[in-house]
Amino acid sequence: MFETAHKQVVESPTPSQSPASQTAQLNVAESRLDPLSGDWTIFATERSKRPDDFIDQVPGVKTDVECPFCQGNESTTPPAVWVGQIPETARILGSISDCDESPIDDWSVRVVPNKYPALNDICEAEMDSFRVSPSHRDSNLFRSQPICGGHEVIIESRRHVKSLTQLDMAEIDLVFQAYRDRLKHYRSMPGIAYTNVFKNVGRTAGASLTHAHSQLIATDRMPRIVESRVDRMRRHRAETGCCLSCDLLRAERKAKQRVVACDDTLIAYCPFASHLPMLVRLTTLEHQACFEDLGDRVLESVSRMVYRVITWLERLRPGTAYNYYINTRPPGIKDPTDSFHWSLDIFPRMTQVAGFEWSSGCMINPVFPETAAAMYRKCVSAENPRRFR
Amino acid sequence: MFETAHKQVVESPTPSQSPASQTAQLNVAESRLDPLSGDWTIFATERSKRPDDFIDQVPGVKTDVECPFCQGNESTTPPAVWVGQIPETARILGSISDCDESPIDDWSVRVVPNKYPALNDICEAEMDSFRVSPSHRDSNLFRSQPICGGHEVIIESRRHVKSLTQLDMAEIDLVFQAYRDRLKHYRSMPGIAYTNVFKNVGRTAGASLTHAHSQLIATDRMPRIVESRVDRMRRHRAETGCCLSCDLLRAERKAKQRVVACDDTLIAYCPFASHLPMLVRLTTLEHQACFEDLGDRVLESVSRMVYRVITWLERLRPGTAYNYYINTRPPGIKDPTDSFHWSLDIFPRMTQVAGFEWSSGCMINPVFPETAAAMYRKCVSAENPRRFR
Repeated sequence: MFETAHKQVVESPTPSQSPASQTAQLNVAESRLDPLSGDWTIFATERSKRPDDFIDQVPGVKTDVECPFCQGNESTTPPAVWVGQIPETARILGSISDCDESPIDDWSVRVVPNKYPALNDICEAEMDSFRVSPSHRDSNLFRSQPICGGHEVIIESRRHVKSLTQLDMAEIDLVFQAYRDRLKHYRSMPGIAYTNVFKNVGRTAGASLTHAHSQLIATDRMPRIVESRVDRMRRHRAETGCCLSCDLLRAERKAKQRVVACDDTLIAYCPFASHLPMLVRLTTLEHQACFEDLGDRVLESVSRMVYRVITWLERLRPGTAYNYYINTRPPGIKDPTDSFHWSLDIFPRMTQVAGFEWSSGCMINPVFPETAAAMYRKCVSAENPRRFR
Repeated sequence: MFETAHKQVVESPTPSQSPASQTAQLNVAESRLDPLSGDWTIFATERSKRPDDFIDQVPGVKTDVECPFCQGNESTTPPAVWVGQIPETARILGSISDCDESPIDDWSVRVVPNKYPALNDICEAEMDSFRVSPSHRDSNLFRSQPICGGHEVIIESRRHVKSLTQLDMAEIDLVFQAYRDRLKHYRSMPGIAYTNVFKNVGRTAGASLTHAHSQLIATDRMPRIVESRVDRMRRHRAETGCCLSCDLLRAERKAKQRVVACDDTLIAYCPFASHLPMLVRLTTLEHQACFEDLGDRVLESVSRMVYRVITWLERLRPGTAYNYYINTRPPGIKDPTDSFHWSLDIFPRMTQVAGFEWSSGCMINPVFPETAAAMYRKCVSAENPRRFR
């Protein structure tokens, strides 16, 4: 067929005639390097002006399904490994008095093993035996291993609420306490190399249930990109004597334009080379390697700041799907120079990982972080500070 | 708040009592290493049994929008840089006689610069000047650079068809000829480091228009994961004297269970450590670094095999969103030992990149490639070979 096909090669128009080139001259696409990941991200605001054949739809939600996370349905999940209760005083002062009818199974936040785990739930002794056993290899080309650790669900409320912003502040504080306690639990378990707390909200963010919840995965394997991130932080410390994240924070505070909010302990900003649109990074101004080592007061500030960021997101993009995750120093990392710095990234799901991104690993971001930060700052100006205190 | 919260830590049940652990013992989650990427992927079939609150919806499509890719609307796109026409004989024998009313703008496949480019469309001379100019750096922490090259759309038919399987075989052949010619064009352009041909079908795969099309991006920057993939192939060649992909093919053919189809030139298989569910990899049995160096006969086999894979996908998952991309040796790569091997990956969009995947880079795949290959082989048995010859 190819031999007989008639083909005509048309010369490219010169730049002055090319509409695409004219556009490009007005809106130069820019790539930015993320010093933490080593990845270049392409910023191309033109992309968001594309015509769109598809109708925006918020995924429908089934109404006839019994929610396994609601109070009263505790037997449908594995037994809890952590339970947090709001003290009597908080219950009187708080806004969750509608739950008072059920004194049985009186919990506010509940952590259970995931019933559909991504990895094998192995107790400490078994972890140890897995570690010393040789890896199961068919050959060097087909290497496989059982993957062990823990996969837990943090059920954020006994009420069937969908957003963290519908929780009482006392519940939110408990959620972050649960993160801290469970991360500490896995950190102390022999063989655990990596821990990750994350939250998926909405179908396009990977959630399957709508009841407010987050998850924790702890594994005996160190992901390659986490290792590479740690290496970069380590190299920066060796070369400059400083923590890379602390240096970035200082530079962002000096540059100002990407900072969204700052208090005496925390900063929330849109990173210069953000690989995803509207991503907000939250961390402590003071150097701190591990989220799970945060003191009570700082942890409380973190939970309030996360609450605020989600209210901004919900204001800017009502019904948006979003994710957050906590980068904390992986237990498997030897870090004698204290080069790691924890952070929490929150981002709405605005773009798809498409063919180009899958094959190149290079993200195309249609929103500059300066624009995103300005949008968030408008939300800060409009917020009622009493709401989150 | 944290100081006063009453907290109760519940002991984890022993493995014999834990439902999660019982599940795990029946279905051990496995991780597999991809020797090409260096990434471990978690295979966890239990994940697909999760309850789901969301209703599956195929995104709605607007009907009142004029399609810029249809015949007659050529003026709404930048001028074509490549045009392919099916010869008269093919038109009589083929199935596209319904298009014969319009002898004007008589094209079958048309390549145009993307009107909403992800990068700056710079002509050869400008590329050169960009290359020698210093990078625009605010500081070492805030590094940015204009990103240059080309971003093109391959319009696969003048008719408003949505799937490549609705094309005539002669049109499909032209599409693959266009890929080859445009990749060659950019390979010969000074300063181009990386080229990528990809296809996004359906909203969740990143498409914005439904008219059958694919895209090409050529850039002056080498993506980090592509560089790392090249390094692995190079190291394998240095250590063993063999091409890593050729070794993988041989091993897959010997193992048999993940091979879907094989002819005298091509193999289609589900890779052992596939990071995405139901992914099919297609490549030449014979060592070949660059897709754009394929001869006419082999290229024709590739276009027919891609057509077949998409018919299988559409049979197994009607209306599915999917992507494909071509990995070809990047022009910026020095490869004196000829260690690179081209491939084309096709995959339906079944899972979301969620919080865990974004932060760890580690994918969770709910379908073992052995299962996927068996499903595809059933489609092979049911297919009518006359359809694609």
